Amino acid sequence: MAGDNGSVHKVVIIGSGPAGWTAAVYAARADLDPVVYVGVPKQNPSIILPGGQLMLTTDVENYPGFPDGVTGPEMMEKFQKQAERFGTKVVGEDIVEIDTSSRPFRLKTRDGSGNESETLAHAVIVATGATANWLGLENEQRLAMSGGGVSACAVCDGALPMFREKPLGVIGGGDTAMEEATYLTKFASTVYVIHRRDELRASKIMQERFMKQPNAKVLWNKVVVDVLGDEKIEGVMLEDTKTGEREKLELGGLFVAIGHTPATQFLEGSGLTFDDKGYITLGSRSSHTNIDGIFAAGDVADAEYRQAVTAAGMGCQAALDAERWLGAQGVE
Amino acid sequence: MAGDNGSVHKVVIIGSGPAGWTAAVYAARADLDPVVYVGVPKQNPSIILPGGQLMLTTDVENYPGFPDGVTGPEMMEKFQKQAERFGTKVVGEDIVEIDTSSRPFRLKTRDGSGNESETLAHAVIVATGATANWLGLENEQRLAMSGGGVSACAVCDGALPMFREKPLGVIGGGDTAMEEATYLTKFASTVYVIHRRDELRASKIMQERFMKQPNAKVLWNKVVVDVLGDEKIEGVMLEDTKTGEREKLELGGLFVAIGHTPATQFLEGSGLTFDDKGYITLGSRSSHTNIDGIFAAGDVADAEYRQAVTAAGMGCQAALDAERWLGAQGVE
Repeated sequence: MAGDNGSVHKVVIIGSGPAGWTAAVYAARADLDPVVYVGVPKQNPSIILPGGQLMLTTDVENYPGFPDGVTGPEMMEKFQKQAERFGTKVVGEDIVEIDTSSRPFRLKTRDGSGNESETLAHAVIVATGATANWLGLENEQRLAMSGGGVSACAVCDGALPMFREKPLGVIGGGDTAMEEATYLTKFASTVYVIHRRDELRASKIMQERFMKQPNAKVLWNKVVVDVLGDEKIEGVMLEDTKTGEREKLELGGLFVAIGHTPATQFLEGSGLTFDDKGYITLGSRSSHTNIDGIFAAGDVADAEYRQAVTAAGMGCQAALDAERWLGAQGVE
Repeated sequence: MAGDNGSVHKVVIIGSGPAGWTAAVYAARADLDPVVYVGVPKQNPSIILPGGQLMLTTDVENYPGFPDGVTGPEMMEKFQKQAERFGTKVVGEDIVEIDTSSRPFRLKTRDGSGNESETLAHAVIVATGATANWLGLENEQRLAMSGGGVSACAVCDGALPMFREKPLGVIGGGDTAMEEATYLTKFASTVYVIHRRDELRASKIMQERFMKQPNAKVLWNKVVVDVLGDEKIEGVMLEDTKTGEREKLELGGLFVAIGHTPATQFLEGSGLTFDDKGYITLGSRSSHTNIDGIFAAGDVADAEYRQAVTAAGMGCQAALDAERWLGAQGVE
């Protein structure tokens, strides 16, 4: 029944990407003594990835404030240091369940050894992010982790010098894949959309935007069965889904655009509402969810922009919203 | 009829605070060749303040990424450098009028000598910010500019060490003044709300939140006629609005909370819609205004959060929204 030291936390923040740390900076400066659950380190599968998606990003060039760029892990270290400077407490455990039927909320925690416990919180900020969907190929993962030219975000990475005037591949067939492919036509020599079927799921207008680019090309009925290259991607091995024939395609970059999965599994049964893609739904221009006292920020509630700086902005909003709400409840 | 060099800009960004520069970083990386109108330097009155409100801020401790803090001007220099690195063009002129009746939009510019000209743009991002309202006293301005303990933002500055355990004054009587005053009770020895009338305009619940703090005090029927102190504020001279009597009040900090004015004067007659406080109204969770092709970001469209990081997040959204909209119009 008791939280850490028998007390009830004013605010628990779940997740440690840009949204979580920014919420912590603001909550800590408002003397709300925030506790950030960053997940179980180096354990797979953890519910949340400590540091968020940026831990997999080598060069961040579009987070404002770093004119010469910064690596994702370095940036997250700065965010964490800033949150801790103002008194944020960091816990290396997962939250596996939230019971919203009583106040304060009861959060079930799980540590690296699998031990479960319970902690109590007046307010909760969910900032668990989302993860890009991948094909699941070994070389794909290796080159994505090492900055070797495989990415799940064209808007983040497409403008990097390494991709200029190179043939680039985009895997996917939805609106996002078309948008990313169209974006990449500005930089690439040729953009190949690689799609497993003979028609795209994307809306007609998005297909047309891509198709009308002089350097756009769609490879129908093709799947990628291997990613080639040691340090940097050199190409992919394609397999025709009708004939089974294999052929090599030379590429200077590969963008996997087969969707994202928001990290909301642990919220099943919480009573929170989600949109049709599984993202937490928020009130108009605020971080309030459908449950009073539970706030959300960052990619877990944003299928649209998904940038470090938008997530950070949402984290700030969530902390300010939580502070006002807690004040109105008499918790200060 | 012609823009610079006879061409039509894809996107013009008006304003150079966190929202404007972040929009520029994203627009430039999307090859939209953005032009940022930063206003006329060192000319008073300019429509917009080059660099925005942060140019008046000495220590920024809550913009994530700078664990040791950063000065406002230094931060804006980094933002600008980052935008310019990706090809943003910067123009030291004001936009004094936008004609939205024809496409592309026609923007009337004015340079430092008062010369007017015209430039054309397919899309416009308004990021002109807002300015805090001040009493207008000479010493108030001097100490606000020098970081001497006078501020118009308790959430930004209230947690600074210089204000801890000191008597602090808050001028104002609305909900924001109550919120800032309540926030400051966490740090201050005593918080004095200084109000010119014998009742507050703030809602009852906000008044009660403040009043119930043990270190809260309201000074009724008082106006501040001078701010005292050379390097740092030492106090204020109060005048009783009924008796005219003057007395000194010792203070370690003064927070002016008499509202903000969004910089929208130049948009009169543009057809844009504003809320009852004069802020630009936006669609739910986007940067689209009521006019297709005109986007807004930052404090000019945000009466609620008004932080550097929320403005930067909105700037990113505006650039991505503008890019998608331009793409749908066939402008790439």
